[in-house]
Amino acid sequence: MAPTPSDIRKARKRLAGVAVLTPLLESSFLNDLVGGRLLVKAEPLQRTGSFKFRGAYNRIAQIAEDERGRGVVAFSSGNHAQGVAHAAQLSGIPACIVMPADAPEMKLANTRAYGAEVITYDRYSEDREAVAADVLKRTGGTLVRPFDDAGVIAGQGTIGYEIAEQCREQRAEPDQVIICCGGGGLTAGCATALQDVIPGLAIYSAEPDGFDDTARSLVAGYRLGNDPAARSVCDALLSERPGELTFAVNSRRLSGGLVVSDDEVFMAMRHAFDRLKLVIEPGGAVALAAALAGRLETQGRTTVVVASGGNVDADMFRRALDAAG
Amino acid sequence: MAPTPSDIRKARKRLAGVAVLTPLLESSFLNDLVGGRLLVKAEPLQRTGSFKFRGAYNRIAQIAEDERGRGVVAFSSGNHAQGVAHAAQLSGIPACIVMPADAPEMKLANTRAYGAEVITYDRYSEDREAVAADVLKRTGGTLVRPFDDAGVIAGQGTIGYEIAEQCREQRAEPDQVIICCGGGGLTAGCATALQDVIPGLAIYSAEPDGFDDTARSLVAGYRLGNDPAARSVCDALLSERPGELTFAVNSRRLSGGLVVSDDEVFMAMRHAFDRLKLVIEPGGAVALAAALAGRLETQGRTTVVVASGGNVDADMFRRALDAAG
Repeated sequence: MAPTPSDIRKARKRLAGVAVLTPLLESSFLNDLVGGRLLVKAEPLQRTGSFKFRGAYNRIAQIAEDERGRGVVAFSSGNHAQGVAHAAQLSGIPACIVMPADAPEMKLANTRAYGAEVITYDRYSEDREAVAADVLKRTGGTLVRPFDDAGVIAGQGTIGYEIAEQCREQRAEPDQVIICCGGGGLTAGCATALQDVIPGLAIYSAEPDGFDDTARSLVAGYRLGNDPAARSVCDALLSERPGELTFAVNSRRLSGGLVVSDDEVFMAMRHAFDRLKLVIEPGGAVALAAALAGRLETQGRTTVVVASGGNVDADMFRRALDAAG
Repeated sequence: MAPTPSDIRKARKRLAGVAVLTPLLESSFLNDLVGGRLLVKAEPLQRTGSFKFRGAYNRIAQIAEDERGRGVVAFSSGNHAQGVAHAAQLSGIPACIVMPADAPEMKLANTRAYGAEVITYDRYSEDREAVAADVLKRTGGTLVRPFDDAGVIAGQGTIGYEIAEQCREQRAEPDQVIICCGGGGLTAGCATALQDVIPGLAIYSAEPDGFDDTARSLVAGYRLGNDPAARSVCDALLSERPGELTFAVNSRRLSGGLVVSDDEVFMAMRHAFDRLKLVIEPGGAVALAAALAGRLETQGRTTVVVASGGNVDADMFRRALDAAG
């Protein structure tokens, strides 16, 4: 079942004083570039460096008292792993995260540093779902899915209400919103919240070249997968196909899906460095990239984009700094 | 006359809905590094990329109606120039900024892009105060000083009240606060506000090696200057000596002055990139550097540092990325 606006409002209460109320940033330089107003929700500043903390914390908060002691399990190579690990740590319950053995060393180390037990598997010879199933059987813990879960989607949706309130405070009336999209949980949650406050608001997903499953699925009307051979610098958005629950929401609420290239992503990261003083990771920059690359008409309009994460290593960030002079 | 707490509270009202309410960030990794809680006020996210916007806007808002048409004048090679230009632009009055002809091209371009007239001078053959005096005589405008002005100090002080409120929301009780210090306006304003809410709170200035005029002046009890041959990567903090007004406040309110090296500054910038997803410029990172380098006892304590600005070019930022692996 998809979360209702009421579910997302309850998630806000759970997250109050725990999640960072990230600012909605604006730069007159970026406004000039797009010929309108451009507002950027700065979710890299969230705990663990991405929005994933919100959904994980909200989901974990709803685990029944008698099940909490058995802990939570998640499989992820990146932001979801850190979000679940830290949310479990703050909630005082054990976490076991199943990660590929060749995941970036920093992501393995960070997940452990948030107090989680990390179980690695060989991504070429082992099935991660089978590994996670073994852990679940052993511990009797609760699986926290990365996107296809109402509690997770509701947590991500709290960003939508924050955007609506911050727009009012900053005297901005959004004409359109662009949201980074992997499995679609952030998009579905934000769309539900935003259209609750601003009915009919135009909302678009943004994806990288090669991982445009949501864009193509929206056109087709049913869920399509990506070419398994596809590659992208956007490591946070390498989804196989839209989620079942998330696509049921997104297919009803979105006006369309936007797609950007790696070069456009690096350029957006560079502009965020220059103009917003914000570190955005490639996957977190696709919505900003779509706005700056002109995928939508922005002239004379107010466009809100969600920057969804900032977990990028120095080598990758240097590539963004090289993107423009 | 130094601003009173009431002056700073009035400044908050003027800045409400105009200045960014920048978040007070916390990372469990940085907490582990210092052995206590470390909270970072993220002022690089402020309009124009530094706290300077606050003081400029508050000062300009108090110019009498019949003087506004003649505009404002400032001299600065950096953050103050951009802060005054943008504050004047938003206030609908003309700005003329006197800048050295060899100031970084981006800073000249940015200041012009905020709608200001930029007048350049040769810093080796011309006296910038004389150039500014000429402009003032010609236009009859109002000079906006970078720090030695009660309206400017009051604007910067709004950060102090925000920190106090955000600490309460985040259930943190600060034991000590460290503030980046050039001429001392930010430090004086924040100290006045913070000690209004938390009497007796320990507050320290932070400065780079070679520009530790406030640290030495606090010890001496009177204002000392820096060696004219001194150099630092902290271009925002190259003050000649403490301001008269700011030192009168700081000498009464500060517990001491901390001093950091260029290497410590780069390391702090690198940690802010990794752990806070925040771009900090060298001069804006000295307070964080002082905390991370152990200039104060942080074990078991709650330390707040102000990150004051993020206007750093890509070449300088690459040096910070190289600082650790």
